[in-house]
Amino acid sequence: MEATSARGPLRGGIDLGGTKIEAIVVDAGQTVLGSSRHPTPSSGGPEAVAAELVAAMRGACQAAGVEPAALQGVGVGSPGVVDESTGTVSTARNLPDWEGSFALGPALSRELGTAATLGNDVQVATDAEFELGAGRPYQSVLGVMWGTGVGGGIVLDGRPWLGRGGAGEIGHVVVRIDGRRCPCGRRGCMEAYAGRAAMEARARRKQEDGTSTDLFKIMKDRGRTKLTSAVWAKALERGDKLATELIDEAVEALGAGIASAQNLLDVQAIVIGGGLGVRLGEPFVQRIRKAMQPHVFNDANPPDVLVAALGDLGGALGAALLVSRRAEGTPAPVAETPPSPT
Amino acid sequence: MEATSARGPLRGGIDLGGTKIEAIVVDAGQTVLGSSRHPTPSSGGPEAVAAELVAAMRGACQAAGVEPAALQGVGVGSPGVVDESTGTVSTARNLPDWEGSFALGPALSRELGTAATLGNDVQVATDAEFELGAGRPYQSVLGVMWGTGVGGGIVLDGRPWLGRGGAGEIGHVVVRIDGRRCPCGRRGCMEAYAGRAAMEARARRKQEDGTSTDLFKIMKDRGRTKLTSAVWAKALERGDKLATELIDEAVEALGAGIASAQNLLDVQAIVIGGGLGVRLGEPFVQRIRKAMQPHVFNDANPPDVLVAALGDLGGALGAALLVSRRAEGTPAPVAETPPSPT
Repeated sequence: MEATSARGPLRGGIDLGGTKIEAIVVDAGQTVLGSSRHPTPSSGGPEAVAAELVAAMRGACQAAGVEPAALQGVGVGSPGVVDESTGTVSTARNLPDWEGSFALGPALSRELGTAATLGNDVQVATDAEFELGAGRPYQSVLGVMWGTGVGGGIVLDGRPWLGRGGAGEIGHVVVRIDGRRCPCGRRGCMEAYAGRAAMEARARRKQEDGTSTDLFKIMKDRGRTKLTSAVWAKALERGDKLATELIDEAVEALGAGIASAQNLLDVQAIVIGGGLGVRLGEPFVQRIRKAMQPHVFNDANPPDVLVAALGDLGGALGAALLVSRRAEGTPAPVAETPPSPT
Repeated sequence: MEATSARGPLRGGIDLGGTKIEAIVVDAGQTVLGSSRHPTPSSGGPEAVAAELVAAMRGACQAAGVEPAALQGVGVGSPGVVDESTGTVSTARNLPDWEGSFALGPALSRELGTAATLGNDVQVATDAEFELGAGRPYQSVLGVMWGTGVGGGIVLDGRPWLGRGGAGEIGHVVVRIDGRRCPCGRRGCMEAYAGRAAMEARARRKQEDGTSTDLFKIMKDRGRTKLTSAVWAKALERGDKLATELIDEAVEALGAGIASAQNLLDVQAIVIGGGLGVRLGEPFVQRIRKAMQPHVFNDANPPDVLVAALGDLGGALGAALLVSRRAEGTPAPVAETPPSPT
């Protein structure tokens, strides 16, 4: 790719997901000059993940024709508890053997030869939709990232709301007291019904108990080891009964959980993204909107509910925004106390 | 009472509840110089309520030795949808025959001869706890007013968060999909289990179905027509089985609903007030804290959960704060669009 369209300093953005790592290089106009996608290692702990992030970023740089060290910086959207000031990531459940705290930012800086800035993956994806995507016309937005888990990002009055560092955990809003067991260990969380990991675990148990389904056949045909969003989409397309039943339950839980959040926050718009949100798209956002309806208190004035506009790249674009925000000295988002050390 | 302790301009504050009207006169130091409590009319529509508010305010003024017209202004915390700019109140479910919109502010101004400022009752009570009560040490507070209904007030980064005018409806967070019918008509709301009105309706049905309870006997002995917070407290004290069972369910629902709100907002402190919250006090706040525990995602760092410090007067004190805020020209709280006309 020619570098002729590049304006201003180039930045790197990495979206670190439970399944894949997406790295991009963008110019000042947010044009993607190069990208690279790697699977997230399923073993080897933080060191293996860090090495894969470096490899993905180098791949994106190569595609963009730029040296990593020439980037203004690299931003990373990471799961787990992210300490933006030190660049450490703690207790990232969806990453392999990531129990304690790991200084991911410093490790990347060292290898790539440029500054690395970390942010929470879901907040970063929400910020991207707010600044560049479906959330642009609004001042208050709730981002719902529907994927392996269900994460939430909050923008109020134009600024990210992080609470004490742990806000936005919409996946763990309780939709049914004493309900289904969640991968987090609690009961009745929205994610216990709507998260892809929870849905996969339930599909496996149902199949073991004799329920017939094409889900795992489609998975194997595609050379996958997990039920990816594409696998779910294919099974729904084929009318697979178990897949349909589990997605129906997910939509019902999303409707109740997102409506609960709306009753509390009363935002102008809700943006549905994440692997499943983006893959299933507008028809399913339409279904979520309908599932919210019976629970929205201010039903005369429901919020706009939109599908994420940046697609798969939202997380990486948001991560790259972390770099420009840092460079511009934009005031830090509202966070009242640093997240507790874990 | 002598007026010698009075400093600065005097202000009136009225808390308009579903059961009672509490009016106070305070000085600049928030000292209560006089107060008056009237029952809320149970018929006669907005006009009857307005007349009772005027009578209560006149009573408080008499106790304080001041003419209503000499007050700097009167603030009112009202249920329903409050339009602060026009002083109208719409669809106040807990007030008699209040279906449409009524210009309560202008009506009070005319009768009392001083400016009247309106605010949402729950937000006003939360603001009072934030500025003068249990919330003083914090920058982000969720107020949970546990009474006839369950209302929520939100303060983030030191400022009330009102959303588009309808934020804070924590009573209508869904705690059980397809759960119990709520007085609002929806299913599974926290208020369907924890609101005093819902609990009374359920107690009546249970009694009609043959469950034995002292609740209605205590009510009659006290000359009441509703199960007030004091009636519930007395029944619990006597070990009434039905009262105990319903309060247990309320605590369970409050635990799940408040934990859900915390998972989203990650505030520093939660203040439990309202008729039942204040009456049942610390032992029940302790129980709510415990009921939240299994659902709080950031369980290594739970929020402080406190009983309201201003007791029964919180709503009226918060209403009086509306007057000083208006006088000082304090920037309006964050509200992005006016509430929809209903």
